[in-house]
Amino acid sequence: MLARKLAVEALGTALLVFFAVGVATLSFGDGIALAGTSLAAGVVATALTFGLVMLVLVYSLGPVSGCHINPAVTVGFVCSGRMPLSEAAGYWLAQFVGGIAGAAVLYGVMRTTAVYQPGVTGLGANGWGDESDVGISAGGAFAAEVVLTFLFVFVVLSVTSRLGHRNAPGFAGIPIGFALAVVHLVGIPLTSTSVNPARALGPAIFAGGGALGQVWLFILAPVVGGLIAGGLHTALLPQPEPDASKAQKAA
Amino acid sequence: MLARKLAVEALGTALLVFFAVGVATLSFGDGIALAGTSLAAGVVATALTFGLVMLVLVYSLGPVSGCHINPAVTVGFVCSGRMPLSEAAGYWLAQFVGGIAGAAVLYGVMRTTAVYQPGVTGLGANGWGDESDVGISAGGAFAAEVVLTFLFVFVVLSVTSRLGHRNAPGFAGIPIGFALAVVHLVGIPLTSTSVNPARALGPAIFAGGGALGQVWLFILAPVVGGLIAGGLHTALLPQPEPDASKAQKAA
Amino acid sequence: MLARKLAVEALGTALLVFFAVGVATLSFGDGIALAGTSLAAGVVATALTFGLVMLVLVYSLGPVSGCHINPAVTVGFVCSGRMPLSEAAGYWLAQFVGGIAGAAVLYGVMRTTAVYQPGVTGLGANGWGDESDVGISAGGAFAAEVVLTFLFVFVVLSVTSRLGHRNAPGFAGIPIGFALAVVHLVGIPLTSTSVNPARALGPAIFAGGGALGQVWLFILAPVVGGLIAGGLHTALLPQPEPDASKAQKAA
Amino acid sequence: MLARKLAVEALGTALLVFFAVGVATLSFGDGIALAGTSLAAGVVATALTFGLVMLVLVYSLGPVSGCHINPAVTVGFVCSGRMPLSEAAGYWLAQFVGGIAGAAVLYGVMRTTAVYQPGVTGLGANGWGDESDVGISAGGAFAAEVVLTFLFVFVVLSVTSRLGHRNAPGFAGIPIGFALAVVHLVGIPLTSTSVNPARALGPAIFAGGGALGQVWLFILAPVVGGLIAGGLHTALLPQPEPDASKAQKAA
Repeated sequence: MLARKLAVEALGTALLVFFAVGVATLSFGDGIALAGTSLAAGVVATALTFGLVMLVLVYSLGPVSGCHINPAVTVGFVCSGRMPLSEAAGYWLAQFVGGIAGAAVLYGVMRTTAVYQPGVTGLGANGWGDESDVGISAGGAFAAEVVLTFLFVFVVLSVTSRLGHRNAPGFAGIPIGFALAVVHLVGIPLTSTSVNPARALGPAIFAGGGALGQVWLFILAPVVGGLIAGGLHTALLPQPEPDASKAQKAA
Repeated sequence: MLARKLAVEALGTALLVFFAVGVATLSFGDGIALAGTSLAAGVVATALTFGLVMLVLVYSLGPVSGCHINPAVTVGFVCSGRMPLSEAAGYWLAQFVGGIAGAAVLYGVMRTTAVYQPGVTGLGANGWGDESDVGISAGGAFAAEVVLTFLFVFVVLSVTSRLGHRNAPGFAGIPIGFALAVVHLVGIPLTSTSVNPARALGPAIFAGGGALGQVWLFILAPVVGGLIAGGLHTALLPQPEPDASKAQKAA
Repeated sequence: MLARKLAVEALGTALLVFFAVGVATLSFGDGIALAGTSLAAGVVATALTFGLVMLVLVYSLGPVSGCHINPAVTVGFVCSGRMPLSEAAGYWLAQFVGGIAGAAVLYGVMRTTAVYQPGVTGLGANGWGDESDVGISAGGAFAAEVVLTFLFVFVVLSVTSRLGHRNAPGFAGIPIGFALAVVHLVGIPLTSTSVNPARALGPAIFAGGGALGQVWLFILAPVVGGLIAGGLHTALLPQPEPDASKAQKAA
Repeated sequence: MLARKLAVEALGTALLVFFAVGVATLSFGDGIALAGTSLAAGVVATALTFGLVMLVLVYSLGPVSGCHINPAVTVGFVCSGRMPLSEAAGYWLAQFVGGIAGAAVLYGVMRTTAVYQPGVTGLGANGWGDESDVGISAGGAFAAEVVLTFLFVFVVLSVTSRLGHRNAPGFAGIPIGFALAVVHLVGIPLTSTSVNPARALGPAIFAGGGALGQVWLFILAPVVGGLIAGGLHTALLPQPEPDASKAQKAA
């Protein structure tokens, strides 16, 4: 059963990266740049893709693995005592493998187009300074990624908790997906938005340029955000006692 | 328990302001202006952010505090007899504290970018006349904010009421979030859309320019809109008698 | 109780017109035209507003009146035997009154801006020929409005029927809202999209220009579309027998 | 009953093509091109239309036929043992008939406009090489269509399965619709996105130019994607035993 969970986590992370980083590349990549003269349109396209692909994967894969598909989410579950470290280690490995695989397939497809220029177009990689649309500093990028990841992981922990499930059973995928959309709506111009170490690493490997040199921040800051979310969620939203008749099928 | 509710209201309001006013600043702020040559794209980006962050916060924080995160919503609850003034006073304080905190964090992050110019770029603050994209008059701004707040608070009161909950249990966060999106789709070009005194005050403190001088209208008009919504909701949508077996877990 | 239903239908239609026609005016009106160099962005903004305001009104007002807020929807209910003509007559009157009231308030607010030029900017009115973005013919406009209204009314009838309610209780507002968004995504460039005689008449009265001379088509064609939807729905989707335990609270 | 299912499949496919290919034509067609200087806005408009019309049709027609309205989805159902080939053959025929009918009505309406130029504007037909916005190769187009169809069919199979239904009864239409939106967000610039042989064939017949010569790929690749989705879904997500009390009304 664990093997199946890990396969599902790898598949989900690969699909997240292929689709959403794909739209980022088409919207903003040098030489393609479908966003054109209204970058906000590209932000909407990319953020919706991240949000909606997350939403559909939660409904599709959630019943098997919980559909973390993001090491920072798994950090939040560990931090709030809802997953043992031993299981989390497998999740983390599967997520990074999936993220690299998704980026590899995306890279392969993009190279069959007439407009993608390896090492020039980029591949939706995260960055600060010259790699950021608004020239955010490394410190600003770190702070932004912590706040963004905090929101996302806090929402995931809340709506999948016993309290959240009792309040609205079956709905969890909707706020989870839309939270990822929100995080990208504000984060794309700042850092291209990581909030997910596996999404940061995969594309950085194939993007070329300065992406790989900056990727450490986009792995570390989301982990910090996930830890804060796990801690604050535990403190602020204590869970009700289990209720045998209702809690058994929490999403 | 009240302390926890107030902490949650402050946190929620801060997150609403950080994310949604952040997208407003990136989309329309002087010197950034991602909306570019199609302002409608920036309107969509900003309105979706307001709506979707509201939606995810209702599902995350609603089970604790009801997730008002807006003094005008709390006015509506008081006005329709669903919250005592003593509790509302705490909510209002927490919401303003949260709004200022969210704006402060946003201001701190924006200042680490190369493009944000303090006092020039603005910070999504509300305004009329020269501060409005379409040059709306003060009277027009007041009327618009009353109508916009009316819709939002009316929807919140309806879908969280006994009648609304019986009709569609668990769904409340979806119409609440999308109502806030609708309100911003029409309101951003008019006044940048307040409909939330705490969202108006926080950014105005950090925005510079004429924002702080006009903020009174964007605090007062939403309160009027909330009062009308509370009154009309009570008159038009009388609630069924409580039903012990079903009403106990109204969202 | 009928008086309350009619008040709710008038209020809902007024809100639909104020918000959604408001965004249409801001996006495409001469002298404002936020859509700028990418009309598709204005189409998205306007269509989302129509769809989302419909969605939130279904959840807010549906438990009282069913939230038709569109004479063509009421035609569909009559045609499929789900509402007597006597009640429908009141609905129709309330909807037209609401549509005119919503347009009047919108016109009043728009006139307080510096950019709205009465009789020049327009007010989201429907049209063909020179009044259509793509110069559609009167015949094409009629055909398009019939197809568009057919989809919308067919969806409303399906998801609020006994069969639809059993399949997914509480969800009706989501497909109803999104169906109206879809109808506008394709219809705005063609005819500005009526599919709702009350939405067509109200703005036409205040728009000036040729709008009022063409409004008959945008009242008649949606009625035809509603009739076809009612007939085809009855033929294609026969309803199961009532089930005392489950069907009693059909939305 | 089978006749009714087939009628519903044909109607649904026709509506999908009319609305969503209609928006594609208006957004990107030569001589119309509402997307203007920000192609991403047109991508959002078109992808949202595909996604939302799918969502509303699932809620409207799903209780009768399951609302496949896509031969590749039916392939997935056959491949995972959930539909006999004999029934699938009827579905396939109905879907192709519906796709051609929807394209014919769209073509008829577009020809009544002043801007549509037969054989020049196109009709949202799929393509590679010069027929692709980014000049993707035939091999790249095939690979992309396989991956895109895989995601869509995998999601459909998951959320309509016994496991998916138990997890979130009534929700299936939301992830199904949004999955189709995601697939178009990334696929429109690449191939105009088929993932649906019936959607590919219908418009190709009326589009003129090189569309009909390339249509074979956009029929074949989605079938391959559907087969892989059916196989992998069966392998990765084994279904729980039927439960008489709960599974009987799986959507």
